[in-house]
Amino acid sequence: MSSTAGGPRRRRPARRTLPLGEVYGLLEPGPVVLLGTARSGVPNLMAMSWHTMLEFEPPLVGCVVSERNHSHAALKATRQAVINVPTVELAGAVVGCGNCSGREVRKFETFGLKPVPAAEVDVPLVGECFASLECRVVDTSRVRRYGLFVLEVVAAWADPGRKNPRTLHHRGWGEFMVAGRTLRLPSHMR
Amino acid sequence: MSSTAGGPRRRRPARRTLPLGEVYGLLEPGPVVLLGTARSGVPNLMAMSWHTMLEFEPPLVGCVVSERNHSHAALKATRQAVINVPTVELAGAVVGCGNCSGREVRKFETFGLKPVPAAEVDVPLVGECFASLECRVVDTSRVRRYGLFVLEVVAAWADPGRKNPRTLHHRGWGEFMVAGRTLRLPSHMR
Repeated sequence: MSSTAGGPRRRRPARRTLPLGEVYGLLEPGPVVLLGTARSGVPNLMAMSWHTMLEFEPPLVGCVVSERNHSHAALKATRQAVINVPTVELAGAVVGCGNCSGREVRKFETFGLKPVPAAEVDVPLVGECFASLECRVVDTSRVRRYGLFVLEVVAAWADPGRKNPRTLHHRGWGEFMVAGRTLRLPSHMR
Repeated sequence: MSSTAGGPRRRRPARRTLPLGEVYGLLEPGPVVLLGTARSGVPNLMAMSWHTMLEFEPPLVGCVVSERNHSHAALKATRQAVINVPTVELAGAVVGCGNCSGREVRKFETFGLKPVPAAEVDVPLVGECFASLECRVVDTSRVRRYGLFVLEVVAAWADPGRKNPRTLHHRGWGEFMVAGRTLRLPSHMR
């Protein structure tokens, strides 16, 4: 595990309500996220990069969770999830979550992550992530074909101090691009 | 338009076949892409950030193209497209493409982009992009509900010299995160 995985560089982010109309700005850049689910009171986490916004407001997110993933059954059964957005300090935990299964491992405990109660769903937020989106599954019509669940974000939280978050963007086999500088150009593209 | 929009910093990339099994590594990090279409011999380009991989191989990509976009009708009619991946040198052209419509503007000419014939589809590649994916539309069942087209990549091209491409990741309203450093961690996550 990398030296970036834990220890003193992890700070607990502040957590404020994020207007639902601003959610897309968190996911549109394409970060790897930790998808939280819970079943029978046992929370689980999955590293997920295959997601896309489908609608601005209410925010709809398409998420690919295959039948091979332990999270698949929990999503189908509970129709609830939390999308947590980690930054580079959590790289070790992200890779850790991606390299084992909730069938065998309790991920919050194993990777030293703090479960924080959510407001609208029975799935904990990841306390160390700078943003978390509480979601309900609203469409499973393409689950069989692609593993594609459509989630509606019903409550959103973010650390208002993180304007340029060092998110992780997976290229495959543990290679990540770490978010770099910010570029602003005049635009009316929402 | 930014000083990064054109001029001497634009280099024409090399173009080699990319194995279809490696396509996901280009799109999974979440870059803004230039979606190319063509109708009656007139090519068009659209800046697009709402996309996700749906399958590794053959590569399937879900792309959200709303009815408001001029590209929507071309995608439906021709069932062909090219996903081009630009880097930061093309930021001005990307924002330019996103801020006008193919109804009024010929985008290749207006933004100084070179159309390059594709191998499998009747849509030109963007010569300045370091990677281009020739696609056919294979599923339109969620177009009415979400604008979600499923594209199969049938041929892929990339500049083998670009291992750490400075892709653009849109946060909204012309604010982009520019791809930063590469981080590698031991992992068996494809």
